Amino acid sequence: MAQNKQILLDNRPQGEATVSNFKLVTVETPALQDGQVLVRHHYLSLDPYMRGRMNDSKSYAAPQALGTPMIGGTVGEVIESRNERFKPGDHVVGIGGWQQYAVVDATQIGYLRKVDTTHVPLSAYLGPVGMPGVTAWYGLMRICEPKAGETVVVSAASGAVGSVVGQLAKSRGCRAVGIAGGPDKCRYVVDELGFDACIDYKAHANARSLSLALKEAAPDGVDGYFENVGGMVLDAVLSRMNAFGRIALCGMIAGYDGQPMALANPSLLLTQRLKLQGFIVGEHMEVWPEALAELGKGVATGRIKYRETVAQGIEAAPEAFLGLLKGKNFGKQLVKLI
Amino acid sequence: MAQNKQILLDNRPQGEATVSNFKLVTVETPALQDGQVLVRHHYLSLDPYMRGRMNDSKSYAAPQALGTPMIGGTVGEVIESRNERFKPGDHVVGIGGWQQYAVVDATQIGYLRKVDTTHVPLSAYLGPVGMPGVTAWYGLMRICEPKAGETVVVSAASGAVGSVVGQLAKSRGCRAVGIAGGPDKCRYVVDELGFDACIDYKAHANARSLSLALKEAAPDGVDGYFENVGGMVLDAVLSRMNAFGRIALCGMIAGYDGQPMALANPSLLLTQRLKLQGFIVGEHMEVWPEALAELGKGVATGRIKYRETVAQGIEAAPEAFLGLLKGKNFGKQLVKLI
Repeated sequence: MAQNKQILLDNRPQGEATVSNFKLVTVETPALQDGQVLVRHHYLSLDPYMRGRMNDSKSYAAPQALGTPMIGGTVGEVIESRNERFKPGDHVVGIGGWQQYAVVDATQIGYLRKVDTTHVPLSAYLGPVGMPGVTAWYGLMRICEPKAGETVVVSAASGAVGSVVGQLAKSRGCRAVGIAGGPDKCRYVVDELGFDACIDYKAHANARSLSLALKEAAPDGVDGYFENVGGMVLDAVLSRMNAFGRIALCGMIAGYDGQPMALANPSLLLTQRLKLQGFIVGEHMEVWPEALAELGKGVATGRIKYRETVAQGIEAAPEAFLGLLKGKNFGKQLVKLI
Repeated sequence: MAQNKQILLDNRPQGEATVSNFKLVTVETPALQDGQVLVRHHYLSLDPYMRGRMNDSKSYAAPQALGTPMIGGTVGEVIESRNERFKPGDHVVGIGGWQQYAVVDATQIGYLRKVDTTHVPLSAYLGPVGMPGVTAWYGLMRICEPKAGETVVVSAASGAVGSVVGQLAKSRGCRAVGIAGGPDKCRYVVDELGFDACIDYKAHANARSLSLALKEAAPDGVDGYFENVGGMVLDAVLSRMNAFGRIALCGMIAGYDGQPMALANPSLLLTQRLKLQGFIVGEHMEVWPEALAELGKGVATGRIKYRETVAQGIEAAPEAFLGLLKGKNFGKQLVKLI
């Protein structure tokens, strides 16, 4: 048993999410039943998809129930076990939620996974070697299907997903062009991640201006686009797509607060014979082993680089999450819980 | 040699196309060179894609050059031949354009194709057993990928393409729902073509109203959508798509005059994990033999039904074409040239 601080969803956002939507409580972890494991969380992952769960609307995911801990990926250490597959000291990845501890029914396959931290830092299992990395891998490899010599563009390019998309595209012989918010992020994307170019969308007032910048950064047009944000950025990239281009629709963070976010010129999808496909990585478990093998090796050998923004303490999670939605983080947003 | 009336593209539309964009001329057909064939056209096909060619903008197809006969599919009879593969009396399909005769270099593979009119009427080679039919077949079979028990929706359902989409979907065990303009077309789609339901989009002032009607006509949601029109209809159907639905983007006639035609809620593509793909059937020649075999058999045995609207005389082509763009035709729009 342990004192366990949790962040609950207290009420649903009206438009933009605020800290008042959340509530901090302290509970005691229950005694373990047979098959259960008590995990102490080291890191909590903050991800844009969580904003969608806060709404009550029909979406791809069930809404987060009010009065329950916010959903979230976690890494930590087993500190007590009544399950023979896990023993105290094991490092594990799970979906423990916004709390310091979780009692997990480890008899259910997939709820908790042991990981090796010899060559890959524990926190990376929430980033490039976790859900964001596999998201990048799936959207790029299975939807954008990059071929050597083609141009791949990704939005939110310095983020947990986008940074991996561009590095994987480079490894496939593509020109990788990022779109990110601000000169610091753009410099990082090019200088440290090795993208060929990066455009600061904040320097452009509208899709037309951004489209002109893209013309320069992607002089041969765009063959694959990995979309994390939607809105003006999608309009701009769409105008630069080559015939038979592929668009992986991973996120549309620009519309998460419910403001209207139309696509200005859908007829380009026809005239350029584009394929556009939305996806959720959790529905494609069949690719996880192959993707994680490549990503784990990439991180262990230093070929896949990544950056983390770490907030300290469970109390900091709401502010850090709201910052993430506004792009205030740099790379993967984590909350350190120990 | 023959006196040959032609309709030229005289000038480009400013917004909506009008008869003044066209010009009727009479020329003499040139003497045949070796390898050439003189074809007398029996029917000219009018199709929405021609409107796109009239513009000078970057599009999937090269713009129609000013002062030349409008492009168009034709069926006719060989009346003179200096090519051993063709003899006078042969029935042929080609892309002869808006004119009474065409001199065709029949040495080029694919420019002219002999057809058998024993069981299939000559004009059907411009409709269900021609480009429109193969368009329906490709978009449905290769993009919508219908499975028995699913629901397939098609817009412009009484038209040359849409009518085939629904009948093919029925043959695959799907529920077929049409969207068409007016009660007569809707009645035809259900009573004669055998669709399960048809919605008159003209009875709905906005996408929301149309979406509610679709909820009734497609109570289990929409798994495959074959899009011929765009605009409000696309918005409405998008709101009814089931998870993992497929949308074949074949035409967006609503936007051909250049008016803005945004997609209201593209985030549905993500939340429902949809696949949307634009295509042009001429780029998928590999499916034509299989598609034409099924379509030819369907028409010959009466299982695939179709309707034609026939304008008389080359002079009537411009008016008939403008009517087609407004949905005034019923089924395949042809011009009879003999």
